[in-house]
Amino acid sequence: MMSRFLILSLLLATCAIAFASDPSPLQDFCVADPKNSVLVNGVVCKDPKLVKADDFLFRGLNMMGNTSNDVGSNVTPVTVAELPGLNTFGISMARIDFAPMGINPPHTHPRATEILTVIEGRILVGFVTSNPENRLITKILEKGDVFVFPQGLIHFQKNLENKYAVAIAGLSSQNPGVITIANAVFGSNPDIPGDILAKAFQVDVKFVYQIQSKF
Amino acid sequence: MMSRFLILSLLLATCAIAFASDPSPLQDFCVADPKNSVLVNGVVCKDPKLVKADDFLFRGLNMMGNTSNDVGSNVTPVTVAELPGLNTFGISMARIDFAPMGINPPHTHPRATEILTVIEGRILVGFVTSNPENRLITKILEKGDVFVFPQGLIHFQKNLENKYAVAIAGLSSQNPGVITIANAVFGSNPDIPGDILAKAFQVDVKFVYQIQSKF
Amino acid sequence: MMSRFLILSLLLATCAIAFASDPSPLQDFCVADPKNSVLVNGVVCKDPKLVKADDFLFRGLNMMGNTSNDVGSNVTPVTVAELPGLNTFGISMARIDFAPMGINPPHTHPRATEILTVIEGRILVGFVTSNPENRLITKILEKGDVFVFPQGLIHFQKNLENKYAVAIAGLSSQNPGVITIANAVFGSNPDIPGDILAKAFQVDVKFVYQIQSKF
Amino acid sequence: MMSRFLILSLLLATCAIAFASDPSPLQDFCVADPKNSVLVNGVVCKDPKLVKADDFLFRGLNMMGNTSNDVGSNVTPVTVAELPGLNTFGISMARIDFAPMGINPPHTHPRATEILTVIEGRILVGFVTSNPENRLITKILEKGDVFVFPQGLIHFQKNLENKYAVAIAGLSSQNPGVITIANAVFGSNPDIPGDILAKAFQVDVKFVYQIQSKF
Amino acid sequence: MMSRFLILSLLLATCAIAFASDPSPLQDFCVADPKNSVLVNGVVCKDPKLVKADDFLFRGLNMMGNTSNDVGSNVTPVTVAELPGLNTFGISMARIDFAPMGINPPHTHPRATEILTVIEGRILVGFVTSNPENRLITKILEKGDVFVFPQGLIHFQKNLENKYAVAIAGLSSQNPGVITIANAVFGSNPDIPGDILAKAFQVDVKFVYQIQSKF
Amino acid sequence: MMSRFLILSLLLATCAIAFASDPSPLQDFCVADPKNSVLVNGVVCKDPKLVKADDFLFRGLNMMGNTSNDVGSNVTPVTVAELPGLNTFGISMARIDFAPMGINPPHTHPRATEILTVIEGRILVGFVTSNPENRLITKILEKGDVFVFPQGLIHFQKNLENKYAVAIAGLSSQNPGVITIANAVFGSNPDIPGDILAKAFQVDVKFVYQIQSKF
Repeated sequence: MMSRFLILSLLLATCAIAFASDPSPLQDFCVADPKNSVLVNGVVCKDPKLVKADDFLFRGLNMMGNTSNDVGSNVTPVTVAELPGLNTFGISMARIDFAPMGINPPHTHPRATEILTVIEGRILVGFVTSNPENRLITKILEKGDVFVFPQGLIHFQKNLENKYAVAIAGLSSQNPGVITIANAVFGSNPDIPGDILAKAFQVDVKFVYQIQSKF
Repeated sequence: MMSRFLILSLLLATCAIAFASDPSPLQDFCVADPKNSVLVNGVVCKDPKLVKADDFLFRGLNMMGNTSNDVGSNVTPVTVAELPGLNTFGISMARIDFAPMGINPPHTHPRATEILTVIEGRILVGFVTSNPENRLITKILEKGDVFVFPQGLIHFQKNLENKYAVAIAGLSSQNPGVITIANAVFGSNPDIPGDILAKAFQVDVKFVYQIQSKF
Repeated sequence: MMSRFLILSLLLATCAIAFASDPSPLQDFCVADPKNSVLVNGVVCKDPKLVKADDFLFRGLNMMGNTSNDVGSNVTPVTVAELPGLNTFGISMARIDFAPMGINPPHTHPRATEILTVIEGRILVGFVTSNPENRLITKILEKGDVFVFPQGLIHFQKNLENKYAVAIAGLSSQNPGVITIANAVFGSNPDIPGDILAKAFQVDVKFVYQIQSKF
Repeated sequence: MMSRFLILSLLLATCAIAFASDPSPLQDFCVADPKNSVLVNGVVCKDPKLVKADDFLFRGLNMMGNTSNDVGSNVTPVTVAELPGLNTFGISMARIDFAPMGINPPHTHPRATEILTVIEGRILVGFVTSNPENRLITKILEKGDVFVFPQGLIHFQKNLENKYAVAIAGLSSQNPGVITIANAVFGSNPDIPGDILAKAFQVDVKFVYQIQSKF
Repeated sequence: MMSRFLILSLLLATCAIAFASDPSPLQDFCVADPKNSVLVNGVVCKDPKLVKADDFLFRGLNMMGNTSNDVGSNVTPVTVAELPGLNTFGISMARIDFAPMGINPPHTHPRATEILTVIEGRILVGFVTSNPENRLITKILEKGDVFVFPQGLIHFQKNLENKYAVAIAGLSSQNPGVITIANAVFGSNPDIPGDILAKAFQVDVKFVYQIQSKF
Repeated sequence: MMSRFLILSLLLATCAIAFASDPSPLQDFCVADPKNSVLVNGVVCKDPKLVKADDFLFRGLNMMGNTSNDVGSNVTPVTVAELPGLNTFGISMARIDFAPMGINPPHTHPRATEILTVIEGRILVGFVTSNPENRLITKILEKGDVFVFPQGLIHFQKNLENKYAVAIAGLSSQNPGVITIANAVFGSNPDIPGDILAKAFQVDVKFVYQIQSKF
């Protein structure tokens, strides 16, 4: 007889379940089914009777992330993918670690505003408004400062000290998404045609290839 | 000539500005006007040209709140009232301090789900589902644990240790609201008629008056 | 061969379908599948071709509910669970019956505002605002009066006469939810630890146990 | 000195305040300012301190409306225009009276689904689905029956008996709007050009003029 | 062994998947599964890994539609049914062709506002406001003019010239729906009872039957 | 006496009116007040009685935009700023002109999905998914082709021919916003610190300064 696993596998072979909208849940909770890794944003939720306290729990946000990389920072996300109980609730959390002088490079969250508080360290933060102003708004944050990065705007952070820094952020979506500008523009798969980027950034196409080779 | 202050005062004498809905801002940002304390949730925002980085900044979330009270806890909110740049963004933050063995008594947020992480301490948390189950879901959280309290459900926290504890929470509204059950039911102004509470809680009306006298 | 029933059963064995949001249906209607009782708030709807007029019909709201209980009231809900055609439409209805002097005890609807009209009787109604005011707003309603109970706020009703009373209510969600304060706080399964409630309500823990024993 | 009334009058001389969206209020309540009749859907609300219980009250829904008109029915609306406390809450109510054999002619609510219960009488109800099916779904409702009219769809009711009938309806918007098809199509101000309606309804233009003359 | 097709067929035999709400997608995209024609508005989307550029592509909007019909117009829709990549995005497009002097008869979109630009021709457009004003707002559009038809309101277009005209429209829903007034009122399946329409339009019932016979 | 203009000016001196959310208008229409250029997204709308057909009209979308610039393209937006009748309706339109071989450089719309149809020409289009895939999805569009650019994702277009090309786009917000990546990252006011961009794009800081000097 066909097992439940097989049926679900077949279903999942060609489809994922989308989730329409963050706000206004229609039941006390809708825990995302942890077995179906494809269903990150799924509307298929566990039978309420099988829901356990652990479905609302994520462990280890006190652990420093690995910042040994080109930019010297690491984000530990706690979205619906890591914490299935967040499903339908329009909120998530993240820990951001900074190596000494490390940066969290310019990026956007296409589906969320971010509110961030500095737990330890001194951090330069900034975001850029949309066209035509492209105004840069920056602030140096000390321990205990809270800052807002508006939804969809390009923003960044930089550790200003020669020691580790850490921040905790809340985001207004269960699956905020991250678009790291450099990676999306110069490191896409496949590459964006060089002539387009050369004209967009007003540089020689050779230089575009050079940057692309690093991502 | 009538001053701007006077005109605004007159306007504010009889009306406040409401804010329709958390999601989907219609501009890069809409900083709430900090001068009009009544307009906590207002759609009247500062001229974008006058907006400064400080409008997105709140200072002091590293400071322990005063937990010398009957329940032994303190919440430091960072909502649109404290951080005007949060306006229209559907998110806020809070710091919760616990005295040794202190509790954050049963309460609801009528407009938000809460995601909480323990910065320091060991905390028992729980929430109760709606009728007819009224199921209590609890968990003991250690440092670095993250837990979800679904929107509108009654929940509580208790410091399990004999030292101070602290947690940081994100909430899915710029103005989540707090309804502390004991205060709303037994401490309203004026009091809810005693016979109603006596029947609701199935106790003698004298006992209702006794509780009411403490709030 | 595996029957459709079996497949659905298997699917339903471990998951329910959640419904993301009340507003803005994306088709003329989406009748909830009446066979799947777990799918109360489901996005799986009947094939439009099989939809019948009866899917939009609920019978018997003229019948008085049984008010022979501790509080002397009864609510007959007409939500998506009872009327599958309500699915995706963000509205439901209820009939509330009151025995002589009966009360509808303090409760909240986590997902709906309620608008109520008195069909027969004289009823005291009230709701309490959130912190820090906890202001009680009350009114005595006569036949034909209409009153509003804002979303998420604690509210109650009491029959002021020595005869039966009845009201009809509209609610702004297909599944408003009900949290009866006394039941959720003192009657949860399992119980909320007594020391937490004792501190929250500033009563002796023995008294907490006494109330808990009645729920 | 310029009076508050004058300032508001000037403001209202050229503008009204719109309300963006029904769901998710951002405060406990936002009572629409009853003095400004233009501000039916306004975001300008009364100072919470001045809000009284009467702001949440509407009286007289027990009174039969005047059905002495061409169609033999009357709707008594209880929207935000009549009950300012409904502001931001996405719900309203209505009483519908039917003279013997009277009809509530085909109409739509552009911003709401309607749930209706028959208080007294026997009523034929129906709605028509959108293109291309244009399927008519009808039901005869008895006292106590509840029926759903999906948002935006054309629907109607007819009293089947030779005595008065009455129904109570809930609607999923604080300002549902009503478009009576015959009035909007043949009774607009000014008239829709006759040749357009002649072609649309496939009748002679003389007949169009004839109908238009009656509205 | 039961094939995936069979399972899906069985599932689809009695249910369709509804889509809760247009706004705020929860992932980069959720391509509607093109194989399941019933799932026009579905939340079941293709596995992101199998998504191809063609899922976001619709071809042929440059082709004139067939206007050889009673009203002399044709609408080519590009909704989620024709372009599965639109799923969850709250937008669609349409091409409207007009034969010489052709009309797009009075209709509503229950789930969308329409913005239209004239590519070629000279077109009279109009919409009617809701009760009680029923105000007709009209404009003659030339090539390059853009006009707005508010959500849910009855509107129409008429080609004023003796040659073909064409317009492109954007609509604020992935599945706006169309209710052609004449077809829904006089051409429903089955017919709306003649006496109801006779009273609603204040015409003799014979005339109602005459119009109904044409639809 | 203080003039209405003066009062409005004073009000506007320090505040703008924000608009909470695109979906679900609460009235037939809410025309943005055209006199207050700051109120692009305002909830203050014209008195419905003063609304005219012209409030729903924008002229000139048939006119080619000026493409004599570095990238060889021009966007003519028709948002609520240009067409006040769009207010509260969650939709806008745009015309995009391309000089021979011109590009519309990589950009995002923080508040809208875009649906685009090619009126004339042959255009390469593409968008990049979010982390971690950063998958580039591209297509060559011919005349009459329609393509979707999901909300918040980086996308671009390139004219592949040696003649002018033109496209019409619909966008799912009345004020979609545009963030041109190169301008926001390398042309902000003031500049993003060079060391941050050098590390983010993994280039020498001299090269960052070189690009910044061009924006």
